Amino acid sequence: MAGGCVIQLFGRRVAWGRGCEWHRQSRNGQRRMAVLGQSPYCSAVEAPAVHHAVSGRVRRKILTLQSMNPQVRAVEYAVRGPIVLKAGEIEKELQNGVKKPFDEVIKANIGDAHAMGQQPITFLRQVVALCTYPDLLDNPSFPKDAKRRARRILESCSGQSLGSYSASQGVNCIREDVAKFIEKRDEGVPAHPDNIYLTTGASDGISSILKILVSGEGQSRTGVMIPIPQYPLYSAAISELDAIQVNYYLDEENCWALDVNELRRAFYRAKEYCSPKVLCIINPGNPTGQVQSKHCIEEVIHFALEEGLFLLADEVYQDNIYSKSCQFYSFKKVLYDMGPEYFNNVELASFHSTSKGYMGECGYRGGYMEVVNLHPDITAQLVKLLSVRLCPPVSGQAAMDVVVNPPQPGEESYEQFIREKDAILCNLAEKAELTEELFNQVPGIKCNPLQGAMYAFPRIFIPDKAIEKAKEHQMAPDMYYCMCLLEETGICVVPGSGFGQKEGTHHFRMTILPPVEKLKILLQKVKDFHMRFLEDYA
Amino acid sequence: MAGGCVIQLFGRRVAWGRGCEWHRQSRNGQRRMAVLGQSPYCSAVEAPAVHHAVSGRVRRKILTLQSMNPQVRAVEYAVRGPIVLKAGEIEKELQNGVKKPFDEVIKANIGDAHAMGQQPITFLRQVVALCTYPDLLDNPSFPKDAKRRARRILESCSGQSLGSYSASQGVNCIREDVAKFIEKRDEGVPAHPDNIYLTTGASDGISSILKILVSGEGQSRTGVMIPIPQYPLYSAAISELDAIQVNYYLDEENCWALDVNELRRAFYRAKEYCSPKVLCIINPGNPTGQVQSKHCIEEVIHFALEEGLFLLADEVYQDNIYSKSCQFYSFKKVLYDMGPEYFNNVELASFHSTSKGYMGECGYRGGYMEVVNLHPDITAQLVKLLSVRLCPPVSGQAAMDVVVNPPQPGEESYEQFIREKDAILCNLAEKAELTEELFNQVPGIKCNPLQGAMYAFPRIFIPDKAIEKAKEHQMAPDMYYCMCLLEETGICVVPGSGFGQKEGTHHFRMTILPPVEKLKILLQKVKDFHMRFLEDYA
Repeated sequence: MAGGCVIQLFGRRVAWGRGCEWHRQSRNGQRRMAVLGQSPYCSAVEAPAVHHAVSGRVRRKILTLQSMNPQVRAVEYAVRGPIVLKAGEIEKELQNGVKKPFDEVIKANIGDAHAMGQQPITFLRQVVALCTYPDLLDNPSFPKDAKRRARRILESCSGQSLGSYSASQGVNCIREDVAKFIEKRDEGVPAHPDNIYLTTGASDGISSILKILVSGEGQSRTGVMIPIPQYPLYSAAISELDAIQVNYYLDEENCWALDVNELRRAFYRAKEYCSPKVLCIINPGNPTGQVQSKHCIEEVIHFALEEGLFLLADEVYQDNIYSKSCQFYSFKKVLYDMGPEYFNNVELASFHSTSKGYMGECGYRGGYMEVVNLHPDITAQLVKLLSVRLCPPVSGQAAMDVVVNPPQPGEESYEQFIREKDAILCNLAEKAELTEELFNQVPGIKCNPLQGAMYAFPRIFIPDKAIEKAKEHQMAPDMYYCMCLLEETGICVVPGSGFGQKEGTHHFRMTILPPVEKLKILLQKVKDFHMRFLEDYA
Repeated sequence: MAGGCVIQLFGRRVAWGRGCEWHRQSRNGQRRMAVLGQSPYCSAVEAPAVHHAVSGRVRRKILTLQSMNPQVRAVEYAVRGPIVLKAGEIEKELQNGVKKPFDEVIKANIGDAHAMGQQPITFLRQVVALCTYPDLLDNPSFPKDAKRRARRILESCSGQSLGSYSASQGVNCIREDVAKFIEKRDEGVPAHPDNIYLTTGASDGISSILKILVSGEGQSRTGVMIPIPQYPLYSAAISELDAIQVNYYLDEENCWALDVNELRRAFYRAKEYCSPKVLCIINPGNPTGQVQSKHCIEEVIHFALEEGLFLLADEVYQDNIYSKSCQFYSFKKVLYDMGPEYFNNVELASFHSTSKGYMGECGYRGGYMEVVNLHPDITAQLVKLLSVRLCPPVSGQAAMDVVVNPPQPGEESYEQFIREKDAILCNLAEKAELTEELFNQVPGIKCNPLQGAMYAFPRIFIPDKAIEKAKEHQMAPDMYYCMCLLEETGICVVPGSGFGQKEGTHHFRMTILPPVEKLKILLQKVKDFHMRFLEDYA
């Protein structure tokens, strides 16, 4: 471009060239020629832009990496991190006809069921559609039980519209339904709608509770205990809040079980430099797939009571249990069974979501949290904090309502609902078994049973030479492994370093959501890649 | 209860009594008798609860006002503050048959159009319903243009489902539509989809941008300049982030106009104790209803460039312009018109929403922000920050798409759409005029013209004796005034102190959203109340 000009607009290069030959940047990022002033895209403005831009000097930015919020800078979120950005780039290349050793990118990085072809639960969508466009309430093709639920939700919305703000805590009748759902799930343990807060997915609830909990300076700064490996929302929220992350390690040798002795070790070690006040549990585990036993939960609750820890129980995978020998116990239920010393004292927030389970409605951003034993002053503070964001999306609240109030035996939609739900859960159980089995056939890959949730988190052996290569690229070894996997096969998984892992061990997280036949191909490709990788770096 | 027992469950009183006479707390908070163990509500659990609870001691809470996050404690959000909680209590009393001097509570505290009876835009709901339940795409009663839009949105969603996560920035085709909408609105000024971020209402975008901007300690802590009166999301976000709030006062004597000399005064005063880095503008104004002139916007932009301020333009009321003499100019458009020195340098984030305008779809939590001149490093940081919350609600994104891509002339739904839109906007304009006129007929109330947005923010004279009375109740004078108004008339408005006002002046914010006939009655009631109030405290 020697002697030429670059034309910028809002800091973005839009055209460059000299004399009669000018190029402009088109929307998909490809260079193309255009006669300025006749471009169909921004003809009205490009001519004056030439005039202006050439004379404008570019000043120093106000917002830079140096000047930005350092806590936000410190945030990492691997589930949508560099590997996923790379996957996006590769997808674009494929669209633009670039040749690759594969035809498509398979995003096994995130628990996004519908993206993998899972069909929505018909009844859920019927209810939400009826709420969205109430003219359909007269439409005979919608079942009566769906209409009943839609009418009930709308009657609890101001102006009978999903377009009104709900109360900050969520629509009243939906909170009532959540409370009934919890009571039924927990075999009668009482739940009160006042303790239920509808949220924008579970993430919003978890962030809000953490936000209210963090305080202190220096040694008295709040420590938040999280499992390693963890779901990186936790580490991200902790960074953002400038809290102290306290790691307790799950026991890979023992199916990723939680050992209360390890909790104790981590807690007492942390007391030397911060004030550990919060204990986060993910059950069923993400990324581990482990399902906690009742005994384990009792030990955790006892520990929390003794050491004065506020409990956060992330239970968004409560419907995703595959191992015949495992059962889901909610922390709330176990807390109750332990007697009044426990159920009148332990401060517990538990989280659920529309995004996982058999429904997989991630896009609706529906969720709830139940918070028990909160100090009344704090209840008011929490409601105030939530009120600033006005309310969770009301259509997501409606979706949550169907999850907690599904068709009942005798209702018109019951059979179809059960058929759809069972098909999805059976299919997931099959894929959980298949994945464990196939991974364990690969030398250098070791995978614990996928008792629940929707991920495999296999341990991978990475040869020393590959570790050196990774260092050259300034990458963690498992990041390098996953990048190679992506570039060679189009399969996008998340490196274990994004979740945390014991020093010297390497893993990746992969969802089991692709359809069975596709999953088989995917697992075979991972196997072939892994064997090649071992050979290449032998 | 001498000699009796109180039974708690999860820190909540559920039953109390002695001997054979036991009461339990029912869901609506009313006391009632029940034979324990036979209650239909939680029969299975109450009996053991008695046994347990009596023996359980209550420990000190972990999370208290003292131990909580002090920044969250400092947050205030008047739009849903104490007066609104009181209104909720009064509503419950009315439902329980308590006699009041009124039959209903009118919530004029929040811009919630559908709650006030405004009907949704048919086309918008049709498109969202089609996206929700794609079986309807075969239904002949839905117009073709709505189906076209729904198909286009679904094709841009993974797995063609609203239930998939979108990209963190939002669905691609919707961001493209937003960019086209902005180009058209701004008479050809280019907008790029990469600069568009879909958000969970405008609040989410504003909070995210502020979050990334705040840094420094002591004198170098980020100062955020906000108008007084402001929309309290700003002060709440600033508290939460522990940033420094820098007030600049709008000129009530001059129709709440922004005076750049006042900006300058506030800026230089603030430099003595912090590092003012962000300038927030609300145009059209909330709560003031003021619409800024092009000249004023030019002065603000010039000031921002000269002093190195990152601009936040809250433009959610851009469709709500009522005064014939006013026109909406976007900051982006004016920035462009000022030439390359400006448009290649000033870092600007502007915000829009589905919640206001003519559509009033608050519950969908749809919104977008356009950010220009962001440093590329910061673009990556912003995407990372947004990715932690995964994505904005996809149904809200679909609603946003209809707002930016409404029916066009020649399309099937065009006429109905325009009819509905115009009816709502004309009606709002009529109510804006009516409100100003009626308020200004009341001695002791003075109301600036409502040029735009959807609120009146009249100045009210409060007699000294009332101010003393307020002090006795430990309330701000206008809070006391609004509490009296609520208790005597059932009308819920927000005290000016929640938005900020010049020392010694008093105001309240009231929406103009109730239907015309109801609004007239409401204004008459306010008038009568005000006259009585002046008399009582004369």
